[in-house]
Formats: sequence, C-alpha cells, structure tokens
Amino acid sequence: MTKPLEGLKVIDLTSALSGPFCTMMLADYGAEVIKIEPLAGDQTRDWGPMEEKSGDSAYFAAFNRDKKGVTLNLKSDKGRELFYQIVKDADILVENYKVGVTKKLKIDYDTVKEINPEIIYASGTGFGQYGPIAHRPCYDVVAQAMGGIMNLTGYPDQPPVKVGPSIVDHVMGIYLTVGVLIALHHKDVTGQGQFVDVAMLDSIFSVLENATINYTVGHTIPQRQGNIDPSITPFDAYECKDGMVALGVGNNRLFEKFCNKTGLTHLLDDPRYSDNWQRTLHYIPELRDTIRDWCKQYTKKEIEDMMDDAGVPCGPVLNIKEAIEHPQIKAREMMVHCQHPTMGDIEIQGCVMKLSETPGSVDQPAPLLGQHNQEVFGISEAEEDELIKEGVLSSYRTED
Amino acid sequence: MTKPLEGLKVIDLTSALSGPFCTMMLADYGAEVIKIEPLAGDQTRDWGPMEEKSGDSAYFAAFNRDKKGVTLNLKSDKGRELFYQIVKDADILVENYKVGVTKKLKIDYDTVKEINPEIIYASGTGFGQYGPIAHRPCYDVVAQAMGGIMNLTGYPDQPPVKVGPSIVDHVMGIYLTVGVLIALHHKDVTGQGQFVDVAMLDSIFSVLENATINYTVGHTIPQRQGNIDPSITPFDAYECKDGMVALGVGNNRLFEKFCNKTGLTHLLDDPRYSDNWQRTLHYIPELRDTIRDWCKQYTKKEIEDMMDDAGVPCGPVLNIKEAIEHPQIKAREMMVHCQHPTMGDIEIQGCVMKLSETPGSVDQPAPLLGQHNQEVFGISEAEEDELIKEGVLSSYRTED
Repeated sequence: MTKPLEGLKVIDLTSALSGPFCTMMLADYGAEVIKIEPLAGDQTRDWGPMEEKSGDSAYFAAFNRDKKGVTLNLKSDKGRELFYQIVKDADILVENYKVGVTKKLKIDYDTVKEINPEIIYASGTGFGQYGPIAHRPCYDVVAQAMGGIMNLTGYPDQPPVKVGPSIVDHVMGIYLTVGVLIALHHKDVTGQGQFVDVAMLDSIFSVLENATINYTVGHTIPQRQGNIDPSITPFDAYECKDGMVALGVGNNRLFEKFCNKTGLTHLLDDPRYSDNWQRTLHYIPELRDTIRDWCKQYTKKEIEDMMDDAGVPCGPVLNIKEAIEHPQIKAREMMVHCQHPTMGDIEIQGCVMKLSETPGSVDQPAPLLGQHNQEVFGISEAEEDELIKEGVLSSYRTED
Repeated sequence: MTKPLEGLKVIDLTSALSGPFCTMMLADYGAEVIKIEPLAGDQTRDWGPMEEKSGDSAYFAAFNRDKKGVTLNLKSDKGRELFYQIVKDADILVENYKVGVTKKLKIDYDTVKEINPEIIYASGTGFGQYGPIAHRPCYDVVAQAMGGIMNLTGYPDQPPVKVGPSIVDHVMGIYLTVGVLIALHHKDVTGQGQFVDVAMLDSIFSVLENATINYTVGHTIPQRQGNIDPSITPFDAYECKDGMVALGVGNNRLFEKFCNKTGLTHLLDDPRYSDNWQRTLHYIPELRDTIRDWCKQYTKKEIEDMMDDAGVPCGPVLNIKEAIEHPQIKAREMMVHCQHPTMGDIEIQGCVMKLSETPGSVDQPAPLLGQHNQEVFGISEAEEDELIKEGVLSSYRTED
C-alpha cells in the first residue's frame, strides 16, 4: 500500500526528542527521512532505557524508526560539501539546533535556499527565532515553567508540578509537523518553499485551554485545582477500593444517569445541584464527599462497568503497564513490534493517525550509526573508510 | 499576503475543544471553515469566561475565530439536504461526534463519499472508531487517567494529578490537523480522498516520552517523580526567595558552567557528581539539598539572570498573568487582539507556527449564531426566516 508522503525527501538535522518526533511522523507516513548525526551520534543513543543484551538505546530506536541514518562532521569542509550535495533535491529540512548554530555551520536557511530555493526549512527551538530571549538554551522543564502549565498543574495545597513526561517536546514536535505540512500544501500548489519557525514556549503556551482568556477577558489569574475542572462538575478523580477512577459528568443528562446508576438519587432533588453551574459552585465539600464515599465502596473495575452501562464518561487511573496492556490500546495498535538488528524484537509506540487509504506504519528499525552513508552519499565502502579516516564520517562498522 | 490554505473549503461539524482547535488552525492559515452548529449553538457558547458587558463566551470566541458560522437542524430532512448541498464541493470535513452518531444522522463518511468521493473526512473521538470501548463517551480527565499521563504526573508522596488544562483535547486537535494535512498532500498529488480517524486516548498515550519503552524494553513501571527527570540531573524546580525556578543542567559542560556561576565549585571535584549518570544516581538528598539551599538565597530574577549569563537553561515558574506579559510571549505575538461585534476588543491566543512566506493570522472574530446562513446556503433573509420558523435554522437575529 502506498504511504501518503512517499516521494518526499527530508533532511533531518534534529536530535533529542522534539525534532526527531516530528521527522518520525514524516517517516512513518512514507517520507524518505535522512537523519544526519554528528560523528559521535545523536545524544539519545546514550539515553535510557538501554536494551539489556546489546546495551543499545531503546530511546533512540523508538523515535528514529523508519529513518535512514548518516553521519557528518559539519564543521569540516568536506562534510559541509556532502551536506550541500544531499540537500540540493530535498523537499524539506528539519532542524532543532539552538538559534544561531546553523548560521555558524553555514547550513542556515539563507545558505540552503541558495542551493535549493524551493525547500521547506523548518526550525524547532526553545523560544523561537526572534524575541528578547531567543538566544537562550531550553529544556522541557524550563518551557513548562515559563509557559504557565506548571503553575496550573498539581494540588492547590502543594507546589506546582511539571507534567511527568516531556510534554513540551512532544507538542512542539507535532506543531512542527503541522507547520511543515501547511508549507507543503503551499509548495504543492505554488512551488514556493519557505521557513517555518516553531518554539517550545509558544507551543506549550498555546495549549492552556481557557487559562489565558480567564486572565485577559475574565480578569482572574487561574490557579491549579488538582483534578477538578473550573467549569464542569462532577469532573474529578476519586479513590476507590483498589486505586483511582476519573469521572466526567458534564451535563444534566449525564448527572441524571450518574445519580440513577449510583443510587444517589437524592442529589437530583437538591436545588444546589440543579444544573452544571450550581453543581460547580457547590461541589466542595458536600457533593465531592458524597461521591468520594460512594466510590470507596467499589473497585475501579466495578465503577467503570457501572458507568459504561450508564453511558457516563469514566475510566481508571492506569499505570504504564496497565495502559500498554489495555485492550483498546492493543486494538488500536498503539504499541508495535519492531525487529532491530542489535536489540532484536522491541515493542515501541505505533502511529496515532489512522488513514483509511494510505495508513502510516512502522516498517524499518532506527538506523545504526552511519548505516546509510554509502547509499545516501553514493560512495563505495572504500571511499567511506577513507572519509572516516579523515574525520568526515563515522560508522558503526568501525566503532567497536 | 496569501495564506497557505486559501482555496480550501472545510465543513466543520465539531464542538467543544478538540475538534474546534483543529479547524481553528485550518482557518487561521487560510481555509474557508464553515462551522455548523446545532440550533441551540455549540455548547461552548455557554462556557466561561464570559465577557462582562455582553455576557458572551470568550471560550467560544477564542477557538472559533476566522470561521464562518451556520446553524442546521441535522435531524430534519431539510437540514440534511442543506448539509448535502454544501458538502458537495468541500475539500475537508472534520467532526468530533461520539462514534455512531454521524451514521444515525446520515452524515457519516460512507454517505458523504457518495456525494463527494474526493473528500477528506476526519473524525476525532475519545477512543477511536474501533476497539472494545470505541462506543464510550470520553472527557479529557478520563483520557488522561487511562492514557497513563496522570499516573506519571505529581509528587511521589501524593496521589496522581491530571495536567491542569485539557491537554488531551489540545494534543488530539493538533494530531487531527496533522492527519488532515497528510491526507491533503495525498489528495493534492493523487486526487484521492480518505477517512482520518484520531482518538484522544491514542493521542495522549503517544506523548509519554520513554515511559512506554521503560516498560516494554526496560522492564520497569515508571512512577511519577515530581519535577525531576529520570535521566538528567540536575533537572528540577527549586524554591527561591519569591517563587520557584526550573533548572535543566543536562550535561557535563552545563554542570561546569552551573557550578562556576553559583560558586558551588566543590561539586566539580566530587566523584559522586562526575558525570550525568552519577549525578542522577546521587541526586537525592545531598546534591538536591545543596542546590535548594543555594536557590533560597536569591530571587527568581536573580537566578534567571545568572543562568542566562552562564548559558544554563533556566526559567521562573510563571503564573498565567506573568506568562502572558512575558516579553518573549509578546514578541512572538502569542496573544493577539480581536475585534468582536458584541464583546468589543478581546485578547486571545495567536498562531504557533510562524511561516515566512504565508503566515497564519487571526483576522475575523468568531461568528455569531447562524451569522453566515444566508451567504453559505445562498438564501435571502426572507428564506432564512422561513427556515428558522420551520425549525431548520436558527440565528442570532431572532434570538433576543
């Protein structure tokens, strides 16, 4: 079956998570992604978890599948020449260097545009290409702190807490993909390429739901509220016999179903709970405690089944093992097997967007260091060895 | 200036947040998005914050700018006919009904495909179109619970906590956009349309960084760790004189800069902190406490300035007001002014992806109820009034 991005050539200068997450999607859906690593390899080749027997990084393997891998010393003239050679007929380039580095390396948009005027050149950075702190380095936790999401996450009587996984890297990577694809449509229609600039800070700032307008229009500074929602009630997580369940009872119809199913029908006659807004105003402590007491009598599974039967949105708080093993996650193939040359069979995440005619899929393992040097640069093994000696390339073949 | 998605017609059957967030991006970047609301309007027209004088919803206004608005009673034959009429020449349709509803309404992909074989029909749902719990309703908190992110967020000695804002709705909305745009490239090249299926559960499950492979390859079940990172140290948030700062000291070079700037140079000679992995193993309690004590002596601003000077990733934990007013957020135009017919000047979020040649922008306010009925359906005011009487349309004109 054809993949939808087949025929597109992507030069991938990204490392760590955010950039590679973008080019991973492009690769899963069919683009030829050529990942260029420095001679020592992408830093994530040292990031855990490591597969036991090989000692190789599953982190690198997870986010670089379906890509080709080459190495290049971009500080050497020969390395730069090889880069110019392969970028000539590329459709897209993605990079996530700190602002200014590509210019120093002479691989910035202005330089590349001279060689390939129609290219889409996409940059993902901490703070974007301009603005007073554009020069600063950034990590996920810093963007979470400055973007406002950290202050909104956690319990009201506890300090702010970051979203566990590196959410900013992921969200930025997905936005970067959107930016590339919007530019691609424009290129498909007009032939014109352009520069795409996406920032970690902007990305996380844009997913705060109504927190921003609560300030600019509502004139309040929203605070973290644990698991409850500022405008929907009941909407919370509750302790039960063997863990926690989340409940979202978003309107009167659902509240009626909920009360009937739980037997808490007296709540339906209480004027304090007559509609969603009244319930929101009067949630704490009495309504909350009533639901808390009810939940404590049952297991997660019992509550989930009852709510499923009643048609009320509900789900258990799952740990990673439970989430991975959930039949819905399995049915959606959100974890897939991948045969890796050194690690063997590993299970990594699947493709999110299910396209009926041209689906994405995980077909190839992540490349070994410099695995596709000969193919991509059109050189023989002897020529590759020579360039390795000269410090222009590196390869897994000569590493051990 | 041309917008990149100009010329594309999008039928928008979405409500609440996730779907509208997707079509908002399509609209900001130039697509003609026709939002179809039920006669009573999108539920978010009742969601806060409400603008004081008009009493109208800033929530609706924020996520539906740049769209045209029509109303339709899709349960009536005439309403369905009008829908078939405008979907005929659409490029894209986006909907986020519960699974099965579009079929009941006879506006599902199979039906629409008969009228418009080349359409891209994109569905965003809680659990996707298939699988054992595909039928269930879902809210953000339920997907956060089941997707594993909630269990990974929070302090180790506290219960799991959800990400404050509705992150699943946002992430799913962005993925839905990626799905639409990948399908659009395929359509641009081949003319073929297709069905795009994206789920809230899949979306949030896919942004857990290495948590999933820590289980499948690393054979551990990762647990929440507050603000620290499982593989980078120091990487944490610290109390200072007037709040908290986040620090990301990701490698030896940065650790040296950090120690030199803070004067904690004795840490550099300590074998327990000789490299990132050693620091990660020996972070708690001594290294953590040393940095905690150092931070307590300074203000957020003082620490941020010192780290900026040293080139160490650092940023203060900002509340919403502070984030909105940050000069970087301002420079990036992440909040923009919008003139709304009933609310006046309101400040809502801007566009994330900065495209050099065909940028997106916020140009038009969100529509009033049924504002574009006449234009979109090609009917006169008298005809509109007649259809309103028949219960096929509704309009702000006849609401007060």
